[in-house]
Amino acid sequence: MAGPARADENGLIARYFAPLAGPGADRMRDDAATLAPTPGHDLVLTADALVAGVHHFPDDPPASIARKALGVNLSDLAAKGATPRGILLTLALPDDWSEDWLAAFSAGLGTATAEHGCPLLGGDTVRARGAMVIGVTALGEVPAGDMVRRVTARVGDRICVTGTIGDAALGLALRLEPEAPWIAALDDGMREYLRDRYLHPRPRLALAEALRRHASAAMDVSDGLAGDCAKMLGEGRGARIAADAIPLSAAAARAVRAEPALIERILTGGDDYEILCTVPDSALDALRAEAAAVGVPLAVVGTVTSGDGPPAFEMGDGTARVFAAGAFSHF
Amino acid sequence: MAGPARADENGLIARYFAPLAGPGADRMRDDAATLAPTPGHDLVLTADALVAGVHHFPDDPPASIARKALGVNLSDLAAKGATPRGILLTLALPDDWSEDWLAAFSAGLGTATAEHGCPLLGGDTVRARGAMVIGVTALGEVPAGDMVRRVTARVGDRICVTGTIGDAALGLALRLEPEAPWIAALDDGMREYLRDRYLHPRPRLALAEALRRHASAAMDVSDGLAGDCAKMLGEGRGARIAADAIPLSAAAARAVRAEPALIERILTGGDDYEILCTVPDSALDALRAEAAAVGVPLAVVGTVTSGDGPPAFEMGDGTARVFAAGAFSHF
Repeated sequence: MAGPARADENGLIARYFAPLAGPGADRMRDDAATLAPTPGHDLVLTADALVAGVHHFPDDPPASIARKALGVNLSDLAAKGATPRGILLTLALPDDWSEDWLAAFSAGLGTATAEHGCPLLGGDTVRARGAMVIGVTALGEVPAGDMVRRVTARVGDRICVTGTIGDAALGLALRLEPEAPWIAALDDGMREYLRDRYLHPRPRLALAEALRRHASAAMDVSDGLAGDCAKMLGEGRGARIAADAIPLSAAAARAVRAEPALIERILTGGDDYEILCTVPDSALDALRAEAAAVGVPLAVVGTVTSGDGPPAFEMGDGTARVFAAGAFSHF
Repeated sequence: MAGPARADENGLIARYFAPLAGPGADRMRDDAATLAPTPGHDLVLTADALVAGVHHFPDDPPASIARKALGVNLSDLAAKGATPRGILLTLALPDDWSEDWLAAFSAGLGTATAEHGCPLLGGDTVRARGAMVIGVTALGEVPAGDMVRRVTARVGDRICVTGTIGDAALGLALRLEPEAPWIAALDDGMREYLRDRYLHPRPRLALAEALRRHASAAMDVSDGLAGDCAKMLGEGRGARIAADAIPLSAAAARAVRAEPALIERILTGGDDYEILCTVPDSALDALRAEAAAVGVPLAVVGTVTSGDGPPAFEMGDGTARVFAAGAFSHF
């Protein structure tokens, strides 16, 4: 089903992607790249894709889309305790792509990969038959055997989250329902902050080493805190979480005061890209101290319990609520 | 832009992809997998995507699509002299996907990954806004420093190809133009053979070790022999190729007798997934012997020359022809 070329793929690669190439990628002049982990280390592999109109708005700035495509993958590496080593990029371009778009995308990607020391190692550029799909495979490394797992929490462990929760979901809501009454309660800076949180994940790589040392389990929060917490705990474990302990930004806090029902969106909305982890009580102080030392805010929000069922959120009014796991999904 | 879940991604992963998981992938219950190359080895990384309606027909058998998605990537590893270690799969599913389709696709993928000792290590399943996109990142390994490069041929090296060239392009032509007169010259078995060659790449992994030992440069032929040969030689080198020496299957040979103009399609059509390599004259006999020992047909088709310009094909009638590099492309 191939057809006459409508663009010179090699020329595009040389112009836009070769400058981003890591040492094992030979300026993208080969069909494969080499990578060797540091001796005594395992590679950590993860893949996450963005689809225009599903994971981002098609008219978002190309550099922001690039940062997000990288960030959502680096966020997974951070949660696993890994240090980034490189990425492969598969770009399915829609019919209306332009070189201007690609130039801005690759420039944004180059800035972000340089910032994280995570060069481009390869990829593929194809023609989509529909919306753009941006697939990234990210490679990181950990000392052998030290990857932080997802379903290894123990009953009694404390549950922690980094940063603030719900900002990206509200940033998305701002764009989808710009006339919602709660938005008027925010000042311009708050609205800008929420929009930025939706556009630009901030992978918590600074916390990776502390997670390796202290966390009993971890994952990044990408599909909503409630559902991801249930996913992390797996079968035979539950959680008691104090809703009031969940860290909210000033903007999110004001939004909830204006419209209390938004708490559901905050707890089930996606795109936080914060770290959710569990830690034995004995290691909690050390994890908090190390998080503080690297400038990552960390809040203790609950405790791992025995038994099945979704995490129970103890609300400020004394009631307990559960949220259906996976109620919100990118799929 | 996420919305309410229309399917349980985790359930799909557990049912269809967990059985394909390699040891570092923990039955797909985590957001990342680990992999360590054999000590003293480099990992070799490559990524290639298939788009329905571009790289395959949407109604091709799902197991065939899976085999192709894996095969085109393993073909790159083979050309680089690498042994497969695992893959990550990013699947963007169109609105009309069905569980039956996914069951057949994952079963086919499982058969193919098992055959090649190349388990699934991770991936992502997302909703496409258009045609299906199947992105595969493949990881292989080579002894440290031994990856066979693409643009490292030397003037005077002999040019070799494995198998037969043009079958897949004719198999595609059969489907796109079923009334073309040359098709009537073929018997049923030949037509079936050509269709199969388009559907099912056969990565030449058996040749990987011999390529590491003897080839000065190599790549797989995916976008047509003429263009890929130009790509392999890069700047400052050309090639003289004897068109009569290019190995054709019985089916392709009969098709060309019926319609001589098909030679252009054979030399510029895509999807061969054979190996194109260069070898110093002194190593030619050894490479041929080792190829024969592992059952891979290998033909010497030409010589690397100095100077720029596309490879010159010396035709049976004494004329020399060139084919525009990239005249045929998947992009």
